[in-house]
Amino acid sequence: MVFKIIRKNIMIVLYHNSKSREFKNLRTYGSVFVGAMALFSTKVETKEFMADPITPWDKLRKNPNSMKAKMELMIMKVQKDFCRALEKEEDSEFKFLVDRWERKEGGGGITCVLQEGKVFEKAGVNISVVSGTLPKAAVAQMRSRGKNLSGEDGNLPFFAAGISAVIHPSNPLVPTIHFNYRYFEVEDGKETQWWFGGGTDLTPYYLNSADAVHFHRTLKDACDKHDNSYYPRFKKWCDDYFNIPHRGERRGVGGIFFDDLDSPNQTACFEFVKDCANAVIPSYIPLVQRHKFTKYTEVEREWQLLRRGRYVEFNLIYDRGTKFGLYTPGARYESILMSLPLYARWEYMHTPEENTPEYELVQVLRKPKDWLKLINEKDNDS
Amino acid sequence: MVFKIIRKNIMIVLYHNSKSREFKNLRTYGSVFVGAMALFSTKVETKEFMADPITPWDKLRKNPNSMKAKMELMIMKVQKDFCRALEKEEDSEFKFLVDRWERKEGGGGITCVLQEGKVFEKAGVNISVVSGTLPKAAVAQMRSRGKNLSGEDGNLPFFAAGISAVIHPSNPLVPTIHFNYRYFEVEDGKETQWWFGGGTDLTPYYLNSADAVHFHRTLKDACDKHDNSYYPRFKKWCDDYFNIPHRGERRGVGGIFFDDLDSPNQTACFEFVKDCANAVIPSYIPLVQRHKFTKYTEVEREWQLLRRGRYVEFNLIYDRGTKFGLYTPGARYESILMSLPLYARWEYMHTPEENTPEYELVQVLRKPKDWLKLINEKDNDS
Repeated sequence: MVFKIIRKNIMIVLYHNSKSREFKNLRTYGSVFVGAMALFSTKVETKEFMADPITPWDKLRKNPNSMKAKMELMIMKVQKDFCRALEKEEDSEFKFLVDRWERKEGGGGITCVLQEGKVFEKAGVNISVVSGTLPKAAVAQMRSRGKNLSGEDGNLPFFAAGISAVIHPSNPLVPTIHFNYRYFEVEDGKETQWWFGGGTDLTPYYLNSADAVHFHRTLKDACDKHDNSYYPRFKKWCDDYFNIPHRGERRGVGGIFFDDLDSPNQTACFEFVKDCANAVIPSYIPLVQRHKFTKYTEVEREWQLLRRGRYVEFNLIYDRGTKFGLYTPGARYESILMSLPLYARWEYMHTPEENTPEYELVQVLRKPKDWLKLINEKDNDS
Repeated sequence: MVFKIIRKNIMIVLYHNSKSREFKNLRTYGSVFVGAMALFSTKVETKEFMADPITPWDKLRKNPNSMKAKMELMIMKVQKDFCRALEKEEDSEFKFLVDRWERKEGGGGITCVLQEGKVFEKAGVNISVVSGTLPKAAVAQMRSRGKNLSGEDGNLPFFAAGISAVIHPSNPLVPTIHFNYRYFEVEDGKETQWWFGGGTDLTPYYLNSADAVHFHRTLKDACDKHDNSYYPRFKKWCDDYFNIPHRGERRGVGGIFFDDLDSPNQTACFEFVKDCANAVIPSYIPLVQRHKFTKYTEVEREWQLLRRGRYVEFNLIYDRGTKFGLYTPGARYESILMSLPLYARWEYMHTPEENTPEYELVQVLRKPKDWLKLINEKDNDS
């Protein structure tokens, strides 16, 4: 096992929900013990974060203005804020399980997971702060995106710090959210190249225009503080990226997505990314509050599982991050696959009947909407 | 829609199992109507097969000894035999739904699906007989496997006929089976290159050595009729192919797998492939009969769903056929993704406790067994 896992919390995670397990005393395994392990862990030392930062405190304090330190502290804070905001919406017996792991090759991460809660079926909020030498494939991928890297393949020192989260709620009327914000540094000879990337996107099971507009509006407000061209450009980029070509469908109702952001300057980029990350809570938590107690039917639950099958298809077949992660030797696959739902369903030739809410959703997935009616043709072409 | 679908059966497929759907009258959609469509279809004309062959009868009768015709008729018969054998094990109200589809670019297929039966949760048996011009990516992939194709990329006429099936039973004590047998022809200038490929493999949720030995013994008997080196070589090939590198696990307990078979001659290869395809029923149906009525627990069901998540990971991330299919423009993705289970589950950091049946299975998946204790070191290296 490449990763050393240190559980830093004393919270008990109850993995079993209320559904009956008639024979559960006959055989115990797996998850019960994973949950129970948390009982014997040590007390959380850090109030500000979910666990101690990956970079030692003294090193962070020595270089408080370096982008590496600023980014690490920012994503640690966003992780804590988001986990606590989600826990507030959840039944009080369900708390995030915190896994702090170290990477043999350098750095590590903190994976926070809440499984089989009442409000959240599976919620994962992960940060990672890693460094080392770029694998050949990564250099090739970066070059194919237009990065001018002159060093020899596989011999470029890098640093990456990012936060990534996927929240799959129990109630089919509450959408799934995903976000990811990251900072990258590559040392190429004497020069250090850096850039930011990320995005936030929403995957509803039932279309609610007010939700979609609220979500996009909140993201646009964060973008507009920095550059009026950001929202229309990054909204289109998001629609293009979260695409399932074989189905002819987008994964959800979009949001924003960008990569290789390195202008106008490092501080401005950081402030933009920070504002986007901080927009996650106001963009999403109100939707959870609005719908988490709404009654739903078995038919709606089955449709949710079917759509989660599509989510799995996107993540395992097309998502650059997932594919790249899984093909990287020594990658922590449990943190990568944390994005997969607890349950998913595949049915042969399932097609919703016309004039049903399920059909209405699929229409929007086939042809993304301009939710804020703000993007003119010119912007849309960018 | 690229495919014209003709439903050729009058059987009613009941998509809904006995589990309660408290609110099912509130909203109807999708699957109910897919099932209902079958009611209005025309009567099956063909007794020998599940539907009319893809190639017109008169063309087949004109060239009864061509390998194209022999292969098409063989896979059509195997499809019928296997579907009927499965239906015999199933509650009589559940029958295969038959979808005969045509491909704009040439040829078509017959997809037989039984969903949410009592014995089989999802069973798909698909044949396809297609022809056209090879896409560039296919030519490149074939060359990378050592095929000497001289024609210009993307300009090689081809013919392919194959059968492919995945059976996901309801009871976690009944294993999942997959098999696929195919014949390929490529016209390269004046020369026609041809080869066969295929395999049969078993994915149990609980290890049963007697089952695994019976399964491997049946496949070995089919192999030994043709060449004593086949079973050991193809058994190892199977273990190597159905591998999930990021988990360090095989998909199941293996079976046989081979590709590019073109010796000693076409007839001998065909007879071998036919014997393998005909070995599916005796290798698998006894396992269904042994365990289909065995009582199982909720814990065993959850473990089955978790292992089905791994099945999805293999199929969507690593399987050459699935990936290649989905990246081919105009591919019939519903027939490709038919292999996915009805339900799957992903749990963060699930690890079975030592000395449990779940743990025992994982040990064998991590280190494939020589079930028949017949493969010596020399064979194993081939």
